[in-house]
Amino acid sequence: MKNKVITLGEIMLRLATPAYLRIPQSKEFIATFGGGEANVAASLANYGIPVDYVSRIPDNDIGRACKMDLQKYGVGTDKIIYGGERLGIYFLETGAVSRGSKVVYDRAHSAISKIKPGMIDWEKVFDGASWFHWTGITPAISQGAADACLEAIQKANEMGVTVSCDLNYRKNLWKYGKKCDDVMPALIAGTDIVLGNEEDAAMALGIHPEGVDVTAGRVESAAYESVSKQVMKEYPQVKKVITTLRSSINANHNN
Amino acid sequence: MKNKVITLGEIMLRLATPAYLRIPQSKEFIATFGGGEANVAASLANYGIPVDYVSRIPDNDIGRACKMDLQKYGVGTDKIIYGGERLGIYFLETGAVSRGSKVVYDRAHSAISKIKPGMIDWEKVFDGASWFHWTGITPAISQGAADACLEAIQKANEMGVTVSCDLNYRKNLWKYGKKCDDVMPALIAGTDIVLGNEEDAAMALGIHPEGVDVTAGRVESAAYESVSKQVMKEYPQVKKVITTLRSSINANHNN
Amino acid sequence: MKNKVITLGEIMLRLATPAYLRIPQSKEFIATFGGGEANVAASLANYGIPVDYVSRIPDNDIGRACKMDLQKYGVGTDKIIYGGERLGIYFLETGAVSRGSKVVYDRAHSAISKIKPGMIDWEKVFDGASWFHWTGITPAISQGAADACLEAIQKANEMGVTVSCDLNYRKNLWKYGKKCDDVMPALIAGTDIVLGNEEDAAMALGIHPEGVDVTAGRVESAAYESVSKQVMKEYPQVKKVITTLRSSINANHNN
Amino acid sequence: MKNKVITLGEIMLRLATPAYLRIPQSKEFIATFGGGEANVAASLANYGIPVDYVSRIPDNDIGRACKMDLQKYGVGTDKIIYGGERLGIYFLETGAVSRGSKVVYDRAHSAISKIKPGMIDWEKVFDGASWFHWTGITPAISQGAADACLEAIQKANEMGVTVSCDLNYRKNLWKYGKKCDDVMPALIAGTDIVLGNEEDAAMALGIHPEGVDVTAGRVESAAYESVSKQVMKEYPQVKKVITTLRSSINANHNN
Amino acid sequence: MKNKVITLGEIMLRLATPAYLRIPQSKEFIATFGGGEANVAASLANYGIPVDYVSRIPDNDIGRACKMDLQKYGVGTDKIIYGGERLGIYFLETGAVSRGSKVVYDRAHSAISKIKPGMIDWEKVFDGASWFHWTGITPAISQGAADACLEAIQKANEMGVTVSCDLNYRKNLWKYGKKCDDVMPALIAGTDIVLGNEEDAAMALGIHPEGVDVTAGRVESAAYESVSKQVMKEYPQVKKVITTLRSSINANHNN
Amino acid sequence: MKNKVITLGEIMLRLATPAYLRIPQSKEFIATFGGGEANVAASLANYGIPVDYVSRIPDNDIGRACKMDLQKYGVGTDKIIYGGERLGIYFLETGAVSRGSKVVYDRAHSAISKIKPGMIDWEKVFDGASWFHWTGITPAISQGAADACLEAIQKANEMGVTVSCDLNYRKNLWKYGKKCDDVMPALIAGTDIVLGNEEDAAMALGIHPEGVDVTAGRVESAAYESVSKQVMKEYPQVKKVITTLRSSINANHNN
Repeated sequence: MKNKVITLGEIMLRLATPAYLRIPQSKEFIATFGGGEANVAASLANYGIPVDYVSRIPDNDIGRACKMDLQKYGVGTDKIIYGGERLGIYFLETGAVSRGSKVVYDRAHSAISKIKPGMIDWEKVFDGASWFHWTGITPAISQGAADACLEAIQKANEMGVTVSCDLNYRKNLWKYGKKCDDVMPALIAGTDIVLGNEEDAAMALGIHPEGVDVTAGRVESAAYESVSKQVMKEYPQVKKVITTLRSSINANHNN
Repeated sequence: MKNKVITLGEIMLRLATPAYLRIPQSKEFIATFGGGEANVAASLANYGIPVDYVSRIPDNDIGRACKMDLQKYGVGTDKIIYGGERLGIYFLETGAVSRGSKVVYDRAHSAISKIKPGMIDWEKVFDGASWFHWTGITPAISQGAADACLEAIQKANEMGVTVSCDLNYRKNLWKYGKKCDDVMPALIAGTDIVLGNEEDAAMALGIHPEGVDVTAGRVESAAYESVSKQVMKEYPQVKKVITTLRSSINANHNN
Repeated sequence: MKNKVITLGEIMLRLATPAYLRIPQSKEFIATFGGGEANVAASLANYGIPVDYVSRIPDNDIGRACKMDLQKYGVGTDKIIYGGERLGIYFLETGAVSRGSKVVYDRAHSAISKIKPGMIDWEKVFDGASWFHWTGITPAISQGAADACLEAIQKANEMGVTVSCDLNYRKNLWKYGKKCDDVMPALIAGTDIVLGNEEDAAMALGIHPEGVDVTAGRVESAAYESVSKQVMKEYPQVKKVITTLRSSINANHNN
Repeated sequence: MKNKVITLGEIMLRLATPAYLRIPQSKEFIATFGGGEANVAASLANYGIPVDYVSRIPDNDIGRACKMDLQKYGVGTDKIIYGGERLGIYFLETGAVSRGSKVVYDRAHSAISKIKPGMIDWEKVFDGASWFHWTGITPAISQGAADACLEAIQKANEMGVTVSCDLNYRKNLWKYGKKCDDVMPALIAGTDIVLGNEEDAAMALGIHPEGVDVTAGRVESAAYESVSKQVMKEYPQVKKVITTLRSSINANHNN
Repeated sequence: MKNKVITLGEIMLRLATPAYLRIPQSKEFIATFGGGEANVAASLANYGIPVDYVSRIPDNDIGRACKMDLQKYGVGTDKIIYGGERLGIYFLETGAVSRGSKVVYDRAHSAISKIKPGMIDWEKVFDGASWFHWTGITPAISQGAADACLEAIQKANEMGVTVSCDLNYRKNLWKYGKKCDDVMPALIAGTDIVLGNEEDAAMALGIHPEGVDVTAGRVESAAYESVSKQVMKEYPQVKKVITTLRSSINANHNN
Repeated sequence: MKNKVITLGEIMLRLATPAYLRIPQSKEFIATFGGGEANVAASLANYGIPVDYVSRIPDNDIGRACKMDLQKYGVGTDKIIYGGERLGIYFLETGAVSRGSKVVYDRAHSAISKIKPGMIDWEKVFDGASWFHWTGITPAISQGAADACLEAIQKANEMGVTVSCDLNYRKNLWKYGKKCDDVMPALIAGTDIVLGNEEDAAMALGIHPEGVDVTAGRVESAAYESVSKQVMKEYPQVKKVITTLRSSINANHNN
């Protein structure tokens, strides 16, 4: 029975200061590993759903610590490939009462950012899989990551694996020269289920609410319906669009 | 009175596991900052000698934490320039009784590795200085670092600042395409005092002991004298060569 | 291809004092999980050998933490069954220079000690397995654990799975009324490969070296050969006996 | 002058995760000791009132650590008896903002649960004592604990020691076969002062408010008076009933 | 260019319990260094303003740790003098939700409390300085500290260095026999800028608001103006008085 | 039955750096309490001997933490008096392999150093006691401590309590103006049992070995006998002198 879920993404080493200390005051950092797609994988594993996390991590003890951490949560790690120079890092200073949290990123040149199509054997990855989940963060990392993501989507389509995407637009990523809406349309074209809000749709696909009188009530819901319909019209493979509005979760279905 | 010492080099964030834990077992890392030339600066400051440490570090909280740590030890940090993406990191797993220590480097793409000539105002740096100390580690980092080092040496020579160098050959560095003995001769040509052993001299300058009957006694001392004399002959500016043999420290003086 | 290894045993929560503190001085305990057979499983997983660890652990967060820890090391945990009241605990006070380590056991009434035959579906466990490893610690825990171990060995024999045993005699266990040599012979009768030294053989199987003149040289080796031959004679299924003498590792083969 | 207070109860090792970590995420546990009656003893000692805590704890370093902790707070520990296998443990995961606290009990088979009448020399315990305090938790642990509690109450009555009880009904205890109201009446029969609310009285003694029109105002106070009067009527030794209502503390006196 | 700021004061070792522990429960203390004037110096250094902190600290590792901590924040420490027996200490128990913070002072006999005029070479201290800042805490420590403060103010006046003072009246200090208003007037007489509220002015200088109808609106502002004017009238050198009222910051200028 | 032991002395707060850190590198200190006479009391309590420790400690949370720590070890603390400004502190930097331990004392002005005769009610202290133990450290602290010690010895003599003393000469104490041999003779005159080596005897009592040919063998034993005999001759109350030589423990008895 094909029932495995595959997620693809970047996982980083998080180094957080303890006890609300500022970074320059702290003599120690608490180390954990995290990334949106890896967290999804851990949640699925927690519910007993078989799931493999796919990424590229360095072949050193930091990479191995990362892999062991995923395994601890029951996530399959056999499809992870080793290579590249480093795992991305972010330093976190947890905010106290009157002071916000602060993040210092040190994620450039990560192993996943240097991935190229052909490095991952997607046929083997999707063997036994029924679902593939990716997010808008991955194509934002680098051209290579965007290409590998497209390669995965196309192979998933070929093998009949359902494809879902969380658009998750992040302005501060997308530094390698391409804009979000240069890259995302080709990827969404092979995706069955799309998650995201209106800002995500606007930035990733250039789709804005139409014919919505913003002075009227229930604007949000109407705007959402407009965007969902346009997405499904422009991208015939998309069968469902799911969004999280402030007060409710909505889903629109194709056909 | 000009009496300040200037040292140039790379400083890295050291993240060590506590209590002899292996990296994948450790939930926390103890953070300190270190680098050969920064350690020399801290020692001099500890003896009350005015010293400025020069480097390029990122303009973020990790860079600032690094600068504050140098200041704590009384090292002048006004000449450090900000820029680049990141501070080099190394992870350290301190060995227990029957297991050696282990280091995982994550130092590529550091701010100092992307330095270019012209970035540091050496005239201002050497204003009030009487001594400039560099090591063979800096030109090993990148072409830019080697170029900046040469620029510093030339300006020091021009301003009458004594130049010393610890050859400190490290095989695992020198990855950017040049070999040690392609780069070092031009730098040593402007150096007054050279520290190093025979292997350093061989690798950095291509100078080997001559006419030494290695089957006879006191070989080391003779070999050292031969190397020292050759260094001083080939590099007229070098006035003193200091080495650490296994059993003694020797110094040979030029004229 | 059937190539999975199965190990069976007890895993306990180890609570160790930090920094050589005595137990009454310590405000905190460092928590890890360990057991001989689980450690063997983790080592095999580390070498890339597929391995499932089988045990009975309580259905609470301590049990789940234990399972996650095994998963971290790549050990399969699907065959572990949940039930019973508690996981065995031992408190460890690591000795400093002039003071030995000290262990306080709190292992009575553990989930594995209350196991009964029929609780584990051995047919499913050995599906895809080629090897089953058990140790003399398991039958020492309780009558139920000894019975479950025998049940496993018999099913392994039936399914053509190679069975190995580390005799590992521990005087302080065996508290439930049976002596080691009351229980072990029936288990060894279904075992293909036996590991252990002379004391283990004496205590577990009542087999002592014969015709060995202990005043002569090479006593150990001769004694070992005598014991190995007797074991293989009395237990026809045993094909190999492996021992660790002080200076060497020996193996004797049956036919 | 007889002025010492005696409290009897169970004390457990509390192992709490630090910094709001979940149990499976935590590498360490903060160890303290606690139990309702021990806390009462520590409070009394803090106010300078001489107090001895009576319990049964294991004769190992965990038991000794527990005794030393009580002594730290000025509680007398001479009457504690040693024996049994283990001290009860509970693991605590302190809840963060949006997540409640969680407790994992590992308290079965504790030393106090295996206590039997005759183990404690109550005559010696009450020598010099004027007050004996017990709670409804102790008879809930086991038949032996209930029997020892009754033995203590009877000896206290014999020696003219005032007896107080905090009913403190806990549904999740009482697992050994007896129900709360099977056991408590005999114990309350020898008690002078009873603390508890209406639910405690209902569960422990089967006493419910009578003739109270719950639609009228001041219901709680009336209900409390009704229960108090019934308790004092059925149990002639009870001279005072103290309860904590939501808004006030009330005490009813017998004659 | 003379642009350095000089601050004078006491710096103490702060030993705080971690994680809201009470002092008797805590096995460890988190060590930092702090004092009002040192904090001002660190803030100025953080904004890039050259600043030297002046104090007297013991010539031991606690004194050196204190000096290194100031240096870390970029504060100049060359003018600190060594001597005396000890650095003042305060123990801090950080309050949890329903329990306030608690401080235990152990600051008597500190090095700064034993300072005498003549110990610090103020001429050298103010060489290159344009500003001197002191607070009402220093003369409260001891007669010697008050005398040294006066000596500093007089030298600053002599050398044309602007003098500012934060009155900062603390009732619990001033234990050496003099009252605040015995000592402060002579110090304020040489001060150019005064910070403080009405209570500070009343306690330090015996100046109270005049002719203010406290039943009318805008009392605070009027009271403040009255006090400011009196201060500037009685102390001709004071050119500015700055106060922090509950709702606003006001400044009054002398001509 | 009078069988309690009384010890008198100073107890200090020990603040040690963790993990071999130097004091200026450490962000935290591990807090314990210690003093020679308190350690003797804790050892006696550990062997079940009733013992009260007498000292003067400050009436604050540091004093209370100290008292609770003594109680933890079963030492009686009822005779401790509260008063004075502070508890003595010493900072400890535990040495690593090639670096010795280092102690920074901050013990001046401690509560015990300001003790005066009459502050402790020795009649009440010795009620029920059979033994009083003091050491040469106490009279070295201050005149007041020496006076209080003499007062205790005289009352002990009066009440028939055996008095023992560990001479324990410490050169770095004795700073208040008196020399050890000015003070100790009067105290030893009331002491029954004296512990110490020859150096202690020389420094405390001015007694040196007589007629011992130091070139002959067994010098130590002879020197010890000579010293012991002189001590017992000069101080008739001394009935036993016990010393620890390098290789053996000797005791000489009076009569």
